[in-house]
Amino acid sequence: MPRYKLTLEYDGTPFAGWQRQAEHPSVQAALERAIEAATQEQVTTQAAGRTDAGVHALGQVAHADLSEDWDPFRLSEALNYHLKPDPVAVIAAEAVPDDFEARFSATARHYEYRILSRRTRPTLERDQVWHVPVPLDAEAMHRAAQPLLGQQDFTTFRAAGCQSNSPVKTLDRLDVSREADHIIIRVSARSFLYHQVRSFAGSLKLVGEGKWAESEMRAALDSCDRSRCGALAPACGLYLTRVDY
Amino acid sequence: MPRYKLTLEYDGTPFAGWQRQAEHPSVQAALERAIEAATQEQVTTQAAGRTDAGVHALGQVAHADLSEDWDPFRLSEALNYHLKPDPVAVIAAEAVPDDFEARFSATARHYEYRILSRRTRPTLERDQVWHVPVPLDAEAMHRAAQPLLGQQDFTTFRAAGCQSNSPVKTLDRLDVSREADHIIIRVSARSFLYHQVRSFAGSLKLVGEGKWAESEMRAALDSCDRSRCGALAPACGLYLTRVDY
Repeated sequence: MPRYKLTLEYDGTPFAGWQRQAEHPSVQAALERAIEAATQEQVTTQAAGRTDAGVHALGQVAHADLSEDWDPFRLSEALNYHLKPDPVAVIAAEAVPDDFEARFSATARHYEYRILSRRTRPTLERDQVWHVPVPLDAEAMHRAAQPLLGQQDFTTFRAAGCQSNSPVKTLDRLDVSREADHIIIRVSARSFLYHQVRSFAGSLKLVGEGKWAESEMRAALDSCDRSRCGALAPACGLYLTRVDY
Repeated sequence: MPRYKLTLEYDGTPFAGWQRQAEHPSVQAALERAIEAATQEQVTTQAAGRTDAGVHALGQVAHADLSEDWDPFRLSEALNYHLKPDPVAVIAAEAVPDDFEARFSATARHYEYRILSRRTRPTLERDQVWHVPVPLDAEAMHRAAQPLLGQQDFTTFRAAGCQSNSPVKTLDRLDVSREADHIIIRVSARSFLYHQVRSFAGSLKLVGEGKWAESEMRAALDSCDRSRCGALAPACGLYLTRVDY
């Protein structure tokens, strides 16, 4: 059975998240509906990251098994035709070996968290940034983040409901930079705990506005105490940008 | 009567343009409604650029006369409160002398035209870029654009209905660059003819895809013949980014 790797871009705003749900629209259901319309096959897809309601993707990866061989470009064209008008698009498709798993074969996941740091609410970017109406010190946020790199127990930054066996993960990147009015947090790891990136963003924001000393990020980590985490940053600022295999 | 300069950001998608119209929503009407709600004054505002339906602004400038003195920050806060939920926001307000005119005092207007050059339609940027599903050569577009700089008769790039007395304008900048999948055209001049930037973008796209030789931009200009202009690029890719005084 040929297996296809699909790279997806989506605006998460209208969706209850990646995962199929009985009563609410999901990216997975939109994709599987498009696959059925294009191929007359009912399939279950698997994704690298089960993004939450309102979380966006620039490079989510999913895989699907089809009973017939498809030219990958023709497949992506057919899926994009049937995905309209949902704000989901296939930006690349390729045939992959049977043992490729979008979720379990991933070697790195890359996220961006985007903050608009200015007094005025966003217009063109509404639902696509976290609006923080006070100035933030991006350099302080970046410095505070660096002691979290490497293999750590991230219990502090792990939300209830996390299905991971262990709170220990290896964080490869947690960079904070300013681009005009925007603060961009770039995060990379092989895998993440539930709400880990939004927990980082919520805590780093406290550093940025001076409510936390820079050392408090590391102290919060070391405490292994969820109650030490900053308030969870909203979903709308989060983007799954790339998955490596 | 104190005069206020208001710098505006807006998503032009839901509007029939800047200018007030009887039957359709406009940015001007949204702003004047907010001014009335905040100040109980009915005023007529004037803008630097009368953007068309679907055109966006990151830095439109308007002015309004009020009978009472307002602290500019308090005024912007009150207007932003009343502008919700329209995708229009005041990003700066300041008191200006009586002889300041948003339209006539401007010394330079800056626009960006954004093209998404890839096969797949946009999802997060729908209505905010011109989707061109073929590759474009940004360097060729840039070279083709340079002979248009300076004082020229822009009849070729002027749409019917233009209210300018003369087709002669001085173009200060027409830069084309690539940023990942995006082609960004940056244009500056003291003032523009009707649809001039979208006429440039539509013609430069033909250069980018190789349908026009680089020399045809200048040849089209020299012909002073509107029929030599490329098809008008859509409004949704155009942003008024800044106005200088």
